[in-house]
Amino acid sequence: MQKPSIPKGTRDFTPYQISRRNYIFNSIKSKFEKFGFSPIETPSMEKLTTLNGKYGTEGDQLLFKVLKRGAKFEKVLLNSNTNTLKSNDFSDEALRYDLTVPFARYIVQHQNDISFPFKRYQIQPVWRADRPQKGRYREFYQCDADIVGTKSLICEIELISLISEILNEFKLTNHSIMINNRKILSALIDLCHSEAYFSKITVIIDKIDKIGVDKVVAELKENIPNSECWKLFEELFSITGSENILEWLNKKLTNSEVGQKGIEELIYIVDHSKKMGIKNLKINISLARGLDYYTGSIFEVILNDSSMGSIVGGGRYDDLTKMFGQNDLSGVGISFGAERIFDLMNDLNLFPDGLDHSPKYMIIDQSGDSINGLKLLNYLRDREVSTILYPDEHKIKKQLKYAHLNNISFVVFINQEFHSKMQIELKDMKTGVQEQHEISNLN
Amino acid sequence: MQKPSIPKGTRDFTPYQISRRNYIFNSIKSKFEKFGFSPIETPSMEKLTTLNGKYGTEGDQLLFKVLKRGAKFEKVLLNSNTNTLKSNDFSDEALRYDLTVPFARYIVQHQNDISFPFKRYQIQPVWRADRPQKGRYREFYQCDADIVGTKSLICEIELISLISEILNEFKLTNHSIMINNRKILSALIDLCHSEAYFSKITVIIDKIDKIGVDKVVAELKENIPNSECWKLFEELFSITGSENILEWLNKKLTNSEVGQKGIEELIYIVDHSKKMGIKNLKINISLARGLDYYTGSIFEVILNDSSMGSIVGGGRYDDLTKMFGQNDLSGVGISFGAERIFDLMNDLNLFPDGLDHSPKYMIIDQSGDSINGLKLLNYLRDREVSTILYPDEHKIKKQLKYAHLNNISFVVFINQEFHSKMQIELKDMKTGVQEQHEISNLN
Repeated sequence: MQKPSIPKGTRDFTPYQISRRNYIFNSIKSKFEKFGFSPIETPSMEKLTTLNGKYGTEGDQLLFKVLKRGAKFEKVLLNSNTNTLKSNDFSDEALRYDLTVPFARYIVQHQNDISFPFKRYQIQPVWRADRPQKGRYREFYQCDADIVGTKSLICEIELISLISEILNEFKLTNHSIMINNRKILSALIDLCHSEAYFSKITVIIDKIDKIGVDKVVAELKENIPNSECWKLFEELFSITGSENILEWLNKKLTNSEVGQKGIEELIYIVDHSKKMGIKNLKINISLARGLDYYTGSIFEVILNDSSMGSIVGGGRYDDLTKMFGQNDLSGVGISFGAERIFDLMNDLNLFPDGLDHSPKYMIIDQSGDSINGLKLLNYLRDREVSTILYPDEHKIKKQLKYAHLNNISFVVFINQEFHSKMQIELKDMKTGVQEQHEISNLN
Repeated sequence: MQKPSIPKGTRDFTPYQISRRNYIFNSIKSKFEKFGFSPIETPSMEKLTTLNGKYGTEGDQLLFKVLKRGAKFEKVLLNSNTNTLKSNDFSDEALRYDLTVPFARYIVQHQNDISFPFKRYQIQPVWRADRPQKGRYREFYQCDADIVGTKSLICEIELISLISEILNEFKLTNHSIMINNRKILSALIDLCHSEAYFSKITVIIDKIDKIGVDKVVAELKENIPNSECWKLFEELFSITGSENILEWLNKKLTNSEVGQKGIEELIYIVDHSKKMGIKNLKINISLARGLDYYTGSIFEVILNDSSMGSIVGGGRYDDLTKMFGQNDLSGVGISFGAERIFDLMNDLNLFPDGLDHSPKYMIIDQSGDSINGLKLLNYLRDREVSTILYPDEHKIKKQLKYAHLNNISFVVFINQEFHSKMQIELKDMKTGVQEQHEISNLN
């Protein structure tokens, strides 16, 4: 028989890994709550109509669709021939691809029970049929916090403060929070009369940190049939220093209402964040973010001197719930890449000590009557001390090895005199010292 | 546009529900850990070959299968005609149906890294395409604890003690832990020469609590073509009291080695559990449990005077990992029906107070410069006090209503003199009293 295995891109987690993953999830969760966000959860499966078309053509192909069952499945085959059948004919539901679209669906569905502005967080797995590679999985967790129902820029400042507090808690202090504004990008692209290529341009300039200025300009030359475009961005990329860049933008976008609004928002957020003590915030005009629904501020966080890519991302969206028929609900959110943070903290050895919850005591019962071991077990557990009892009458050496492998702190030996004298032998597994003790000394 | 909705049998969870669900999960988790169980997690999807055939024909039909994608999907349609295609042709993976089969797969796959006896717990959702009804969902959580790699009956006693401790924590004290042993059932069925009908008989007698003795005997008469069978069970069901039943079993099964072993195990477990202070354990010879893999002790817990059905179930299996090629690994486990417990505790109003984590303070900034509100926010959060700042300049009445809806304890007003005097107005949302305070009084 073949040894069993799991689907490509998925993972089993051992107790050791889970205690570290939970450290990350619990830390994020408690900061989210301190900042006033409340948890919601949505089903793993959404209706295909909810997800289809929300992530572009590429995203649609990466959905894990659920096969129809029974009569519904048979009906598909009955009424068709194999030439015309499409994958969507076989499915009504799919696993969620992110937490944002289900959140938009949740807001519209439950709008009458929500008091806006709604601060929600959600920590759940998502599924994508991407080609698996280092750091990229087919089932992975997202940790999202969003504020919906207000246009106030105070929300952006709060989210920046939240990012900073969480990453510092993880000792990932060497990070940069990059910020830009989609309104500025939009105005620049209008300025060079390339509105038709908005998505293409943003995808290209977004790669500047990976491939450098020269290659970005070359790609713009190659893909955008408008010399104004690459000339404008080449000029922009030649300027260094936030002050100089803002001055240049102000000059170029004097006549653009949208552009002026974008600059104003950016300056407001950066100024206030600095006054709040945020040190790692950096304006980055080439930051674009792939997703189409962003309309204002956009964020991305990288670890300096790391090739890991972004570990947090987010931005403001003015029309997210429009896809489900509800207008005028502006929101802003961030998403922590918990899997990448987990990999980074592992590589950098940043997890604190004491995350593993091994039992403190293991009882080795040599009294000849198993009720003695069971009663001592009860006694210790009643005092909320995590304890185990080795269940078999194996050789002491084997039992001690088991205690060692399970990181037990102390082994408690009980023998035939246990009952009359209420005494035990206590072996410290670290020092190896073994001494006689009263039961009442155990705690 | 149609209002969006979620798939049949699935649920969205609000912050209110999540805090109550987490109370259940966290309580179970912390008891599991106190008893020395370690957490593992497995992927939501398993290979179809791992799951297929493990849950009977009915179970196979209830699997949520994942549709093949891209070239693999097209290949299915290309090489076949619609008359011969089966649902399994379209799928390589399915969502897990329970936590037991994935656990067996995990043990075999990771056997070299595990030190036995392995005490693992797992709290994760499972998916079943059952017809949804009250208390039955298509996505629901299971909470399993198993001890694998020992035949010691101490494990059964520990699990009974664990069940008792958890249900008492939930104030579900009015429960019965029913225990039986598959070896006894097996010996009784052998005795009446009905081995060929083992599964059928166990399914019928298992219904005794629902439909009563008379209907069970009638069903046996109707379905088992062997009068010895219903006569034997009719005789058994006429006896009341654990002592009398054990005496009858002992007499009937004198010559059955398996039967004697079953009785011996049952008595050992019941005696020791009583000495451990367990009061609600009851022998129930009609308890059978549906699953085929149980070979020894079986448990089921019901709430007395409730129609909810079993809230915990479990048992010993000698050959669970055999399905993946590994023999000789006996284990015993229990599974908590967290969804039913959640519904019960809701109905009975058993959740403790203080489960909701609302922010303590909400700041209403009337100072005219938003940096003041942000700085006070920072000050309080630095002291680990959960605080929010109302982000918009709405009317006070609207802001106070928001504070009320979000269960905020105190509203902090700051005005233009905030900066010079470091004073605020504090409104107690419960009493309505509003007083001037120094900032340093907030904590």
